[in-house]
Amino acid sequence: MSEVNRQILLRKRPVGVPAVGDFEEAEAPVRAPGAGEVLLKNLYLSIDPAIRGWMSEAKSYLPPIGIGEPIRSGTLSKIVESRAEGWSVGQIVQALAAWESYSVVSSRMLHGKVESMEGIPLSTMLSVLGGSGLTAYFGLLEVGKPQKGETVLVSAAAGGVGSIVGQIAKLKGCRVVGLTGSDEKCNWLSEELGYDAAINYKTTNLRRSLDEACPEGIDVFFDSVGGEILNSTLTRLNQHGRVVVCGAISQINEAELPPGPSNYLQLLAKSARMEGFTTLDFAPRYGEARADLARWIREGKIHYRDDIVEGLHEAPAHLLRLFSGEHRGKLLVKLAEAEV
Amino acid sequence: MSEVNRQILLRKRPVGVPAVGDFEEAEAPVRAPGAGEVLLKNLYLSIDPAIRGWMSEAKSYLPPIGIGEPIRSGTLSKIVESRAEGWSVGQIVQALAAWESYSVVSSRMLHGKVESMEGIPLSTMLSVLGGSGLTAYFGLLEVGKPQKGETVLVSAAAGGVGSIVGQIAKLKGCRVVGLTGSDEKCNWLSEELGYDAAINYKTTNLRRSLDEACPEGIDVFFDSVGGEILNSTLTRLNQHGRVVVCGAISQINEAELPPGPSNYLQLLAKSARMEGFTTLDFAPRYGEARADLARWIREGKIHYRDDIVEGLHEAPAHLLRLFSGEHRGKLLVKLAEAEV
Repeated sequence: MSEVNRQILLRKRPVGVPAVGDFEEAEAPVRAPGAGEVLLKNLYLSIDPAIRGWMSEAKSYLPPIGIGEPIRSGTLSKIVESRAEGWSVGQIVQALAAWESYSVVSSRMLHGKVESMEGIPLSTMLSVLGGSGLTAYFGLLEVGKPQKGETVLVSAAAGGVGSIVGQIAKLKGCRVVGLTGSDEKCNWLSEELGYDAAINYKTTNLRRSLDEACPEGIDVFFDSVGGEILNSTLTRLNQHGRVVVCGAISQINEAELPPGPSNYLQLLAKSARMEGFTTLDFAPRYGEARADLARWIREGKIHYRDDIVEGLHEAPAHLLRLFSGEHRGKLLVKLAEAEV
Repeated sequence: MSEVNRQILLRKRPVGVPAVGDFEEAEAPVRAPGAGEVLLKNLYLSIDPAIRGWMSEAKSYLPPIGIGEPIRSGTLSKIVESRAEGWSVGQIVQALAAWESYSVVSSRMLHGKVESMEGIPLSTMLSVLGGSGLTAYFGLLEVGKPQKGETVLVSAAAGGVGSIVGQIAKLKGCRVVGLTGSDEKCNWLSEELGYDAAINYKTTNLRRSLDEACPEGIDVFFDSVGGEILNSTLTRLNQHGRVVVCGAISQINEAELPPGPSNYLQLLAKSARMEGFTTLDFAPRYGEARADLARWIREGKIHYRDDIVEGLHEAPAHLLRLFSGEHRGKLLVKLAEAEV
């Protein structure tokens, strides 16, 4: 292939919130896939908090991105060359690839073929039907295990994951309370997504608002924020409460690890649990989850909105938007049309 | 009844480590039991970290002990008067009662009749066959869920709970590592209790010692200590690791809540869980647990040693011993013979 591969590389590890100068654009030849690999044309990039984690040196379930390497990212991609059994040219796949026009990856990095679904845009395969939706689905249902009538609190409730978590919890008959950072997003949660209550944690007294919105305590807290929000919640957990640890966007840009939740001993007082997960833990069940999510979308039970910008060079600025809290729903970067 | 009830009352709430001046001795008439209540003659007091928690104002699964009230305590007691159906005079029971010669309690505070077992001293009903053993049994097996071949780390490993946890983990085919505060206790763990490794956390580099003693990481951490020990352990947890939150003796005397474990996000990176419990969660299964524990004692698979002092007035000093780490095994205060 003689195409040029446009890339965005990690220039240096961010200190605190990533800056545009931490990235650099580059061009490279497109390499041919080896045995067991596929060549992907990337159509959409999924902009997720995990990317910030991979940019740092901390150990995680994946190694850090190396300096000078393209930024690792979930993608929606089209196979343009395949040397991997079971994967063929023209298939649309979800992949763990990178911020670049083309990626060569092992077939182990492909998370499933994407069938286009009637009435559902392809980009949804990276939002409600992709990592965000799967994270919401398994994190809430399998880790949080909400029961009918319980109170479910969601932080980052207007984000790509949180906005789905709350709606699934409503489907399961729970009282659902969302924490978010603007009145406009609070309105969106209450009026379009069906949350029972929404708290603007930036302008209200958090503890008082939680007491008012959760008069019977909190049974499940789906947390993507961490910090003081997590700590305040722990004291309001009910017996056998569950904290689903999905992330800590409030801490992700800290150069040093901030103190952990000083109220963690509430877990003892309440026979409660705090549990982390990745969707990879549930990979054999992706099909089942996508079928449920697609059905709920078609039945009008799940509403969503993706925040899509176009062009590879927009990716760094879009990632920064994740931390400024200006967005609603899932952040995506569109690189190419599937049909081209 | 015209007997005098000797009591030890909470004089004031401790600041930091309790002092003898936080308690006062008193005498009161013995009150007659009301409907649904029993009058107990207390034979042994169980000296547990939970008592320190109840002395403070913090909410827990039980309300704080009031100033001027006798110190709440697990006891082994004999029923001397009963107005509660199913409970009769002469029965030996485990109870949640208080530091006093006689207690009047609702039958809900009785945790089961004690059958004396051949070859097993009655006091064992408060140690291996009592709260400590049940805490070890359910906390390890039901919350920690150790699998054969896994590495189980135990803090406060020479204490009344920890010394049993490690031995049960060995019975389940695990590699067992204990953390304790003296070389003499390390020897006891390794030589008598069968721990695979024992670390004196006071004299060694904790992180290096953990790396050496747990070369394959940690699958289950049974923690009664908290603080830096918990934090260092979180980074060494394996995928799907479990932290059993049994207590935080390092923090229990702090006037202000110390920071929580800054590494708690390792739960996310490792799909791991941190979970609290009380034995009350498993009350319907006490009989099964006691039968297992008694069998293991008789088969010589569980060794134990109780640290027993005599006389009600010794109770405060014995409680302080819990925090100085001078003890091995379970701390008990003997008040009277069962036969009298």
